[in-house]
Amino acid sequence: MKTQVCIIGGGPSGLLLSQLLDLKGIRNVVLEKHSRDYVLARIRAGVLEHGFAELMREAQCGERMDREGEIHHGFFISHDGQMDRIDLHKYSGGQSVVVYGQTELTRDLYEARDRAKGQVVHDAQDVQPHDLATDAPWVSYRKGDEVIRIDCDFVIGADGFHGVSRKSIPADVLREYEKVYPFGWLGVLSRTKPVSPELIYARHERGFALCSMRSQVLSRYYIQVPLTDTVEAWSDELFWAELQRRLPAEVAGRLQTGPSIEKSIAPLRSFVAEPMRWGRLFLAGDAAHIVPPTGARGLNTAASDIHYLYHAMVDHYLKNDSTGLDQYSAKALARVWKAQRFSWWMTTMLHTFPQNSGYDVALQRTELDYLLSSDRAKGVLAENYVGLPF
Amino acid sequence: MKTQVCIIGGGPSGLLLSQLLDLKGIRNVVLEKHSRDYVLARIRAGVLEHGFAELMREAQCGERMDREGEIHHGFFISHDGQMDRIDLHKYSGGQSVVVYGQTELTRDLYEARDRAKGQVVHDAQDVQPHDLATDAPWVSYRKGDEVIRIDCDFVIGADGFHGVSRKSIPADVLREYEKVYPFGWLGVLSRTKPVSPELIYARHERGFALCSMRSQVLSRYYIQVPLTDTVEAWSDELFWAELQRRLPAEVAGRLQTGPSIEKSIAPLRSFVAEPMRWGRLFLAGDAAHIVPPTGARGLNTAASDIHYLYHAMVDHYLKNDSTGLDQYSAKALARVWKAQRFSWWMTTMLHTFPQNSGYDVALQRTELDYLLSSDRAKGVLAENYVGLPF
Repeated sequence: MKTQVCIIGGGPSGLLLSQLLDLKGIRNVVLEKHSRDYVLARIRAGVLEHGFAELMREAQCGERMDREGEIHHGFFISHDGQMDRIDLHKYSGGQSVVVYGQTELTRDLYEARDRAKGQVVHDAQDVQPHDLATDAPWVSYRKGDEVIRIDCDFVIGADGFHGVSRKSIPADVLREYEKVYPFGWLGVLSRTKPVSPELIYARHERGFALCSMRSQVLSRYYIQVPLTDTVEAWSDELFWAELQRRLPAEVAGRLQTGPSIEKSIAPLRSFVAEPMRWGRLFLAGDAAHIVPPTGARGLNTAASDIHYLYHAMVDHYLKNDSTGLDQYSAKALARVWKAQRFSWWMTTMLHTFPQNSGYDVALQRTELDYLLSSDRAKGVLAENYVGLPF
Repeated sequence: MKTQVCIIGGGPSGLLLSQLLDLKGIRNVVLEKHSRDYVLARIRAGVLEHGFAELMREAQCGERMDREGEIHHGFFISHDGQMDRIDLHKYSGGQSVVVYGQTELTRDLYEARDRAKGQVVHDAQDVQPHDLATDAPWVSYRKGDEVIRIDCDFVIGADGFHGVSRKSIPADVLREYEKVYPFGWLGVLSRTKPVSPELIYARHERGFALCSMRSQVLSRYYIQVPLTDTVEAWSDELFWAELQRRLPAEVAGRLQTGPSIEKSIAPLRSFVAEPMRWGRLFLAGDAAHIVPPTGARGLNTAASDIHYLYHAMVDHYLKNDSTGLDQYSAKALARVWKAQRFSWWMTTMLHTFPQNSGYDVALQRTELDYLLSSDRAKGVLAENYVGLPF
């Protein structure tokens, strides 16, 4: 088989790029190792920055997002039994975010690819890129007993942290940066009305908590837990009780509880791989970088990679200008690192660090006090949360 | 002897408070363990924030400062061979700082106390406060063979980090917070024209450097050095050569070098003691808190303590309102901790940390990249550098 762009990974990044390229007449194939149902069962992020929402509209996939997604102009930070609101709209100069679950967004992208008769191969086994450092790269995969070869101009590695793409960059070229946090997030999804119309980031001496939502009837809550905890040890009752303890009494009192639909513990990690381009391979999203979920940068940073890649590919194929491709790694990484900085900052400000004491705890406390006392500091938070300019 | 306020410590904090109280008719005595020449020989800070300059004028000590001090509307950050300017005036909404050496400022305060025939006792030995938890505190000191007792309403501990005042707070009341940095600043004073009309904060892989000044003919330069270094190991020639290496070539090329008038190594430390009031004792300045010099908060935070104390004493004596005295510790500490935060932030962004690697180094680099890319982040830097509101 022959195509122009072979995209490894059928998550939101790969699908979005596939759809955008297709609309410009750039042929592409998406290879996904899992089934569609598997991909759609993943519960992930839910806060889309302005630029991402724009990209979804440009991909002609924004209709349901605009109808069902909710525009949020702010969020709350709770601490010491009280709530302070961060007015994103005011402090970012008029911007906002859209709350719309990654699952829904991925479904919209699949349906768009279906309508366009796009080539999205599911259950593609043993995906392997080849000859990436040459002008004639190709990707092989297996489907049952059959091994298929796709010749292409470029390979996009949008196959996540554990994917094969990043591992295809030679070890003497690849630089990896990592920071691990001594805790995880226990997340619960429940068919209950969200306790607050806007997100609540809760700082509490027992640990961080987040009140989030996917819709007006679907709530997503998280609490910080030690990495040694297991999902089995957290009954729904224990989870709700602990969540309530970490919220101001007034909020806890109106929390609707119910059976968990999904419950999982995710470790928090910061990770960046450089470069994001090697030969004919371009990494995007989790394949190149991971952030802790505080600050909602993960999916949004993947989308910013796709923004750069999309425009670079269009310039290459339609304007015979490869500047964008040549600058991709540097441009994407500059924004990736700023998202890393913001996610690290928001994580360290709001979580309890068991190893911290004395001065560091007081400094952490001061970071929040200063934020809440300064319009300029709120401006910095807001411009990062709604998304820095591309 | 009997007075209203007994001030321990004849540095700028103690003298400024003494002068301000005297102008309101509040009687006070200053006890300084060193000679006046010793105090005036200390080379310290040189950047005064707006509110400090105002306080000097209110103390009728601002005339020479306004004539000889220089108003700075910005400073430079150098990195990677280039210079970026932080426009303090623009980003703080019209404020600025005054560059005027602590030595000159202290001299002005001494002369004001002389003119007012203020009681400033030098060479006061064995200063010791007593009965601080009662309504009748007193302070004893020795002058030669004579032991003198001063009865007073209040005792001000403005006697620096090593002074007796903080140590007079019982151990079960006093909480101390400390952070040490794995490097010091080697500082050189020279009678040369400053290399730049505005300060240059230099980030360099060999270590931080600062180009500062006391006047148009007196330069003050610093370089980050390991704590194991000694002044003896740094000849003037070695110092100038190392400073030049850490500056952009264009700046290094026009650096005027000359013999050092003063050369010393100071460790960098962050320290806060709480509470700042105990009984009839009120701590101010270095007696209660130390910051690393990056960000120029040390003397300025001492001045903000004096601002709070001065108004609290005036309210107490002239308006019979002790609210200010009761709130002093909490109000002063809220601002102290914000200055701690800012000094820590600026120090960690600009210095080389030998123990850091990988992710942390990249994050540190990103902090500067983000700052230089964002007007809002520059606003946060500016409002802290010119001084947060009292």
